[in-house]
Amino acid sequence: VARALRNLLPQESLIYYGDTAHLPYGDKSPETLRQYVAHIADFLVAQGVKALVVACNTASAVALDAALVAGQRAGVPVFEVISPAVEAAVQSTQNQRIGVIGTQATVNAHVYLQRILQRLPRAYVVEKATPLLVPMIEEGWLEHTLCNSVIEAYMSDTAFEHIDTLILGCTHYPLVQKPMEAYFARTVPHPVSIVNSSSTTAQHVAEELVRLGIHSRGGMPAQPDRFFVSDLTISFQQMAQRFFGKDLMLTKV
Amino acid sequence: VARALRNLLPQESLIYYGDTAHLPYGDKSPETLRQYVAHIADFLVAQGVKALVVACNTASAVALDAALVAGQRAGVPVFEVISPAVEAAVQSTQNQRIGVIGTQATVNAHVYLQRILQRLPRAYVVEKATPLLVPMIEEGWLEHTLCNSVIEAYMSDTAFEHIDTLILGCTHYPLVQKPMEAYFARTVPHPVSIVNSSSTTAQHVAEELVRLGIHSRGGMPAQPDRFFVSDLTISFQQMAQRFFGKDLMLTKV
Repeated sequence: VARALRNLLPQESLIYYGDTAHLPYGDKSPETLRQYVAHIADFLVAQGVKALVVACNTASAVALDAALVAGQRAGVPVFEVISPAVEAAVQSTQNQRIGVIGTQATVNAHVYLQRILQRLPRAYVVEKATPLLVPMIEEGWLEHTLCNSVIEAYMSDTAFEHIDTLILGCTHYPLVQKPMEAYFARTVPHPVSIVNSSSTTAQHVAEELVRLGIHSRGGMPAQPDRFFVSDLTISFQQMAQRFFGKDLMLTKV
Repeated sequence: VARALRNLLPQESLIYYGDTAHLPYGDKSPETLRQYVAHIADFLVAQGVKALVVACNTASAVALDAALVAGQRAGVPVFEVISPAVEAAVQSTQNQRIGVIGTQATVNAHVYLQRILQRLPRAYVVEKATPLLVPMIEEGWLEHTLCNSVIEAYMSDTAFEHIDTLILGCTHYPLVQKPMEAYFARTVPHPVSIVNSSSTTAQHVAEELVRLGIHSRGGMPAQPDRFFVSDLTISFQQMAQRFFGKDLMLTKV
């Protein structure tokens, strides 16, 4: 999400917080995640941000209220990654059969199911937790035959057979968009649109900053991007580089 | 480890603490893990335990000192899972070529390498982080073809070709002992011994309790087993059942 925002909004400054001490969020309870999100939102508000993006599907699904409270208190808008993906899926689907993959916590919260049904009451929504995708992506096994085996193990479920749209409901998953597209091209006769929550969120944030009149009009960002983490590990440093496409200076807070 | 202890020591009472709010430990920094371990050790000491078992390879590898400090202050012995596995591997190996698989943090700490070399200075030790095994085990995909693909992706490394002993250096891994044995039976001509740190640790603790004269002599445990967690999730409840073999009453603290 940070990379998509950086590419789309070159004139804005990013302040990123990666909660590496508590990673992954996918298998924690809503109560615990709300505490983490409240703490991070307070930290970012204290940095003087003009907008907050909850760039994690799990946090958006189960702990958005904690960020909203902090944002409201500070008078800054709060964005999340679920609504933009739902909106894109609703625009894309022809047959109203939509698949959603994500972490256990996101799927247990049924937030995609609820939001899609609010927009398309007769939609058929299949949600599935796919917990092996995150460590596989973190291994960098995207060209490996194992990547296809893992995708097949999760997606060769008759419930997914007739979907024409699949939401990648975890911010790691855009990295498997290509093998996922190849899987559907191989196994089903109709086209399947893959909705990537990172690019849809970045697009939504860009539009909203303009609509609210708080977008930067200067050609250059006011300050360099800053990256904070709650725990400093070698593997996160490597992963941040893989995601962001360049070396990052991470600061532990 | 808790199950192995329960089976081997029916007359002792167990007090288990699962740090589910911070799970998994495998990708956190030593500094952060030491804080978690110190907190848990203090909690268990406050429950009046007569011995502490650090039943996690990662915590044993990088944060044992935190548990030792708490144990020493309270006058209770502290056991860990690495020494018993190292001892079993040293006894088992014929050719002094030993493989070790574990989490990223365990492998980065090179604790198995160091301990094996202390006992066998000319041993050839191959360490490898295998982060997909934990989520695969948590999915329960042990009979699935994917299990063999994941094992093959990690183990078909020429460095492992000549080992005659493999240490399963993570407390999840005993659940893949059978497919791992089958993998070696299929791919190498010589026998490979698999060392399981859960059963070797339970055996070591049982012997040490007797040696220290603090084993229970009664036929029945003094109190029923108690299970504490730092976060209560449905998936951990299910997993605890899979590991322990029966339904458990978990208490969040």
